[in-house]
Amino acid sequence: MTQKPSLLVVKAGGQVIDNPEVLQKFLAAFADLPGAKILVHGGGKIATRIGQQLDIQPNYINGRRITDDATIDLVTMVYGGLINKQITAQLQALQCNALGLTGADGNIIPADKRPVKDIDYGWVGDVLENEINTNLLHSLLQQNIVPVLAPLTHDGTGHLLNTNADTIASAIAVALSAHFTVTLLFCFEKKGILKSMDNETDIIARIDRQAYETLLADGTLTDGIIPKIHNALAAVDKGLHAVCIGHMDDLHANASAEPAGTLITS
Amino acid sequence: MTQKPSLLVVKAGGQVIDNPEVLQKFLAAFADLPGAKILVHGGGKIATRIGQQLDIQPNYINGRRITDDATIDLVTMVYGGLINKQITAQLQALQCNALGLTGADGNIIPADKRPVKDIDYGWVGDVLENEINTNLLHSLLQQNIVPVLAPLTHDGTGHLLNTNADTIASAIAVALSAHFTVTLLFCFEKKGILKSMDNETDIIARIDRQAYETLLADGTLTDGIIPKIHNALAAVDKGLHAVCIGHMDDLHANASAEPAGTLITS
Repeated sequence: MTQKPSLLVVKAGGQVIDNPEVLQKFLAAFADLPGAKILVHGGGKIATRIGQQLDIQPNYINGRRITDDATIDLVTMVYGGLINKQITAQLQALQCNALGLTGADGNIIPADKRPVKDIDYGWVGDVLENEINTNLLHSLLQQNIVPVLAPLTHDGTGHLLNTNADTIASAIAVALSAHFTVTLLFCFEKKGILKSMDNETDIIARIDRQAYETLLADGTLTDGIIPKIHNALAAVDKGLHAVCIGHMDDLHANASAEPAGTLITS
Repeated sequence: MTQKPSLLVVKAGGQVIDNPEVLQKFLAAFADLPGAKILVHGGGKIATRIGQQLDIQPNYINGRRITDDATIDLVTMVYGGLINKQITAQLQALQCNALGLTGADGNIIPADKRPVKDIDYGWVGDVLENEINTNLLHSLLQQNIVPVLAPLTHDGTGHLLNTNADTIASAIAVALSAHFTVTLLFCFEKKGILKSMDNETDIIARIDRQAYETLLADGTLTDGIIPKIHNALAAVDKGLHAVCIGHMDDLHANASAEPAGTLITS
């Protein structure tokens, strides 16, 4: 059996995007990563700021932000246009052959508008994981192109949909596991998953399903991190090689065989 | 010698984009065009409207609009995000496998920031015609993908550049003539180039260089149309099969062997 080539899917959130200097440093490190790679970016605060200037009032129901007509246009502009194309142009300047995409482009990420149950979330997409267009992504990667994905999908009837960037990164990483040995790397503002909230440097090196159950039972894991690990383990179960959760400054270490962050494996 | 396959490059301007119903009708016709095709879209009035809402003051020198820092961000959002992705999602709904791009994506259209002579136009790009990345466009077309290009290029040092959509359409069409027999179709609000301003239905069927000189000499051509024909003839001289200038409603006729608009050939 031929070994599959490696692929790194990197998710960068708002804390990377919101500060131009942090972003520039991050992109320089990302551009230097060897091998096939994909960047998935989140939204950041700039959409909120531009939304305020455009007098688009944030619309909440039960504490959840609703993507109404004005908001989907706003995030299409800001996520799909401003952030995505600025990242692409900056990576190009770093000799990284980036190509910015939303899930509508080439029908890469089909989604369903989230069904209305208690809440109508508006133009929010639930990724159709089994319909991701891996052929196009595979073809781009074979041409040494680096796809840069904005957190937008589409419903196939002409509507763009606001979609969680973590979900997109995870779905893409799982789907491409058919062609590649994929590691999914979540960049955030901590070194990794902490053994205790009191110590920012004491990181849990590795979590598998058994360790997860133990950490859950002994109360080590905080509410915010539980769904992240739960989803990471689910992705690993679907064929992903590993998920790494770590600091945006540790990109190269976390992409190596000895990550500085927390590695989640089966 | 093997005959090259046909390719249609269609340029749609603001008059197509500004009205959602006109746009929807145009995209339905575009989606139905057989064979390899590329859509290049202009800006439209929506950027001006959103710019006013964002309090971005249009900046003119000697009657020419300047693309300052705020304006390049605005057009990156509106052209590269809102318009480009809405067109892409709508074409996808019409079973046309559209993929939206700026010139920065995959380094498709490198450009130089326009040199400052009498006027500093700001972040405006002059296309580097000989450096267009035809390999990527060719590869996408071979996968039955329909590239949708926004009027933005990049300078290779991280800056996006506002770029005339006619120029992009023409440069792309010429560059792809190495692989395809390319017809470039400009869609505007008239049937074609008129024999006289008084009669909207009497169209000049065909213009070659000799006819152009005659029409120039006898005063038939108006100021506004002269550069369009001049540029079209220059493009034809560089290997383009033909340029057609016609009405947005005549897309299918103008893409056929018997166009309703004006055909410009060598």
